[in-house]
This record gives sequence, C-alpha cells and structure tokens, in this order.
Amino acid sequence: MADLRETGLALDPKYDANGLVTAVVTDAASGALLMVAHMNAEALALTLASGDVHFWSRSRARLWKKGETSGHVLNLVEMRVDCDQDALWVIATPAGPTCHTGAPSCFYRRVSADGALERIA
Amino acid sequence: MADLRETGLALDPKYDANGLVTAVVTDAASGALLMVAHMNAEALALTLASGDVHFWSRSRARLWKKGETSGHVLNLVEMRVDCDQDALWVIATPAGPTCHTGAPSCFYRRVSADGALERIA
Repeated sequence: MADLRETGLALDPKYDANGLVTAVVTDAASGALLMVAHMNAEALALTLASGDVHFWSRSRARLWKKGETSGHVLNLVEMRVDCDQDALWVIATPAGPTCHTGAPSCFYRRVSADGALERIA
Repeated sequence: MADLRETGLALDPKYDANGLVTAVVTDAASGALLMVAHMNAEALALTLASGDVHFWSRSRARLWKKGETSGHVLNLVEMRVDCDQDALWVIATPAGPTCHTGAPSCFYRRVSADGALERIA
C-alpha cells in the first residue's frame, strides 16, 4: 500500500513525540545552510501565513519568531517537505546574520577528519 | 563564561537523549538539500574515517551506511558543525538518487501557503 505521506499532495507533517518537525533553513540567494531548528504546528502555520519564519524554541519552550529581538528575521521564499514529512526545507532571505553569535550562518566551523574544527572566515 | 561548544575548535557534539545529532546533507555540486537524517557517535566517526556517509537509522535502530543496499552512497566532501554542535552539515557527492523513492532529493515537494503540495519535476 502506498504511503500517502510520501506520494500524496497534502501537507501532513509527521510530528515527533514533542510535536516537532526539523526545519532546515538555506539562504535563497547563496544556497548556504543557515541554521537548523524545529517547528510545531503553530510555528509552521504562522510561517506559511505571514512569510516570517517562526520556530518552536526547545530551550525556551515557546514560539519563536526568528529575529523578534535582533531584527534579523528570515523572509520565506519557498518551503519544501521531505519524503516522510518529518523535515521541512525553508528557503529564505535573511535580514541579517542568522546565528546568535553574529556569524552569517550557524555553520561557521569546518570539521576535519581528526575531529578538529576550523573557523571559516 | 564563554561556551566552548560555540567558540572552541574541538568537535564535541551535543547528542540528544537518544545519542543522536541531526545531519543535513547537501549536494556538493548543486548545493541542493538532499536529505536530513541522524548520526550517533559511531556513524560520525565512521563517516570521518571512511569518507562514506553513515547514519543511525532510527526506524531500524541500527547503523546505516547510506547506499549499502542501493549503491547510492554519499561521498563526503566537507563537514561543518553548527554553533551549539547539535547539527552537522554534510556536503557530499551522491552516487545516485538520494531518496529511497528514486527522487534525486528527499525534498521533492513544494509546500504552498495553503498547505497543498506540488511535486517538483
């Protein structure tokens, strides 16, 4: 029997035990991976309705509009969903550095084969 | 006090309660998001040592060399880690379609604002 989550054309996110799916954000212009976070149903609905990317903050246990404090919002350009619908690809235009450290992307360190990290300029 | 996980140059993954970090795979050539999966310490070590991307399969509860059955392996080109070290960015060259459905990427459907999905050619 075909799995409608995989073949269907209706959004039916497979939320985990905490009601979350993984959200992967890339930069619409450069294609770079900016951050990985989580959305609950409310964050997903708000993102689609407003065009401002929202997450569920696991550390603060609350809804989180990205950039609500810093102003570094993420404007949604396009969203995709993966085969089993437990991950979302958020293609966005960032209004500033995405990482709370001030780096453009949260992925500012390269991993060497020996486990050392190298900071990327 | 500075958080060494964020500022340091040592790989120190922040594994979740199940011993996993999120692994986001993009295509080294096209930059496209291919898949999102998970790694435990063993999968991460094997990936770095062999250059073949390994995951921990949550559904099968076992180590999983991507492409072990299909031959559609992922060859590691570069790995990065995010600020709080709970996500890895795996930049890889795929030997074939990444998705088990035969699609090049697991993210083969676009999400509309109204929640409808559209298959991408």
